[in-house]
Amino acid sequence: MDLYDAIRRRRDTRAEFSGEPVAADVLERVLSAAHSAPSVGMSQPWDFVLVRDPPLLETFRNHVSTEREVFAGSLEGERAETFSKIKIEGICESGLGVVVSYDPSRGGSAVLGRHAIADAGLYSVCLAIQNLWLAATAEGLGVGWVSFYREEFLASLVGLPEGVRPVAWLCVGQVSSLPDVPDLERFGWRHRSPLADVVHENRYGAS
Amino acid sequence: MDLYDAIRRRRDTRAEFSGEPVAADVLERVLSAAHSAPSVGMSQPWDFVLVRDPPLLETFRNHVSTEREVFAGSLEGERAETFSKIKIEGICESGLGVVVSYDPSRGGSAVLGRHAIADAGLYSVCLAIQNLWLAATAEGLGVGWVSFYREEFLASLVGLPEGVRPVAWLCVGQVSSLPDVPDLERFGWRHRSPLADVVHENRYGAS
Repeated sequence: MDLYDAIRRRRDTRAEFSGEPVAADVLERVLSAAHSAPSVGMSQPWDFVLVRDPPLLETFRNHVSTEREVFAGSLEGERAETFSKIKIEGICESGLGVVVSYDPSRGGSAVLGRHAIADAGLYSVCLAIQNLWLAATAEGLGVGWVSFYREEFLASLVGLPEGVRPVAWLCVGQVSSLPDVPDLERFGWRHRSPLADVVHENRYGAS
Repeated sequence: MDLYDAIRRRRDTRAEFSGEPVAADVLERVLSAAHSAPSVGMSQPWDFVLVRDPPLLETFRNHVSTEREVFAGSLEGERAETFSKIKIEGICESGLGVVVSYDPSRGGSAVLGRHAIADAGLYSVCLAIQNLWLAATAEGLGVGWVSFYREEFLASLVGLPEGVRPVAWLCVGQVSSLPDVPDLERFGWRHRSPLADVVHENRYGAS
């Protein structure tokens, strides 16, 4: 698929998972794309835990349901009403969760490019996630990033070692289709802004 | 360009900038790709400050030189020797710095998906950076992410408002070519690891 098509067609997927398994060779290409991302000092500080065990998926889904209620409880009026219609995860329906984590010990004792910005390693992990997401889109898969969880819960669920931080739970799976319009726009939660609003010349605020 | 080709050909560019200006329509497509990235709660919390003013570029380049010395001073023996040969930035040669920043106030008072993970907004900014990087690659441009700087210095240089955090300085420009092998590998700093090393099944450490 053309790069710009993949960027345009990529969606955050919740409701469209069919539950059919992802073929091993397809998943390998998608994970290889993630693993080809740039990383600070070539530290490649990411890991991918592929969660397919149904009890693990259900346990995580139940935790996310609880966190959904926490967020819902913070909303009032129109926001509460709008949020109540939005599906936030397809954890069990997708059949595959990819937990992406960050290991700051990766890359040796002196990571080139990280001495002044400790978070640079975390940034690298996100670049890998976007490669994964675009590759999945090109393969006809859906990806839904779930962030309604507590990091310590997820770290414990998949047994991350001390110091390794979970960055994302990605629902990855076959889909019936990908929606044209993002869910949050379709349900009236938010609308996309024009590019000109976020571009500045030489100084912030100057156009 | 095919997505997988863009992922494979993308390089972190330092030495190959030709200094020719980037056409406005090309830059618009590249920034639009970034602005099409997914973001937590559709908050689109990024900004792009396009720095082309030569004195600003030189000021930043000088700051980065100082930080290079800080890092070099932490190294010994073979590491110091290997690092001494590696070019870490093409700030003036590229002629264009794209400062990408994170504004946590974007997206309203309750950002859907951020109540449990404060860094989720920062993660979104990195997804936009990867879209930008791949689009630039497809357009035949080079991108070099410079992270040898102090955040407060860069924030002040381009006038970021209080609370807006710089995430990256990207050198973006025309290039003579993109190297086949990443610089850090070519110069013997690090080598890429096999995918199998970072993939786990259900639990970290299980294959």
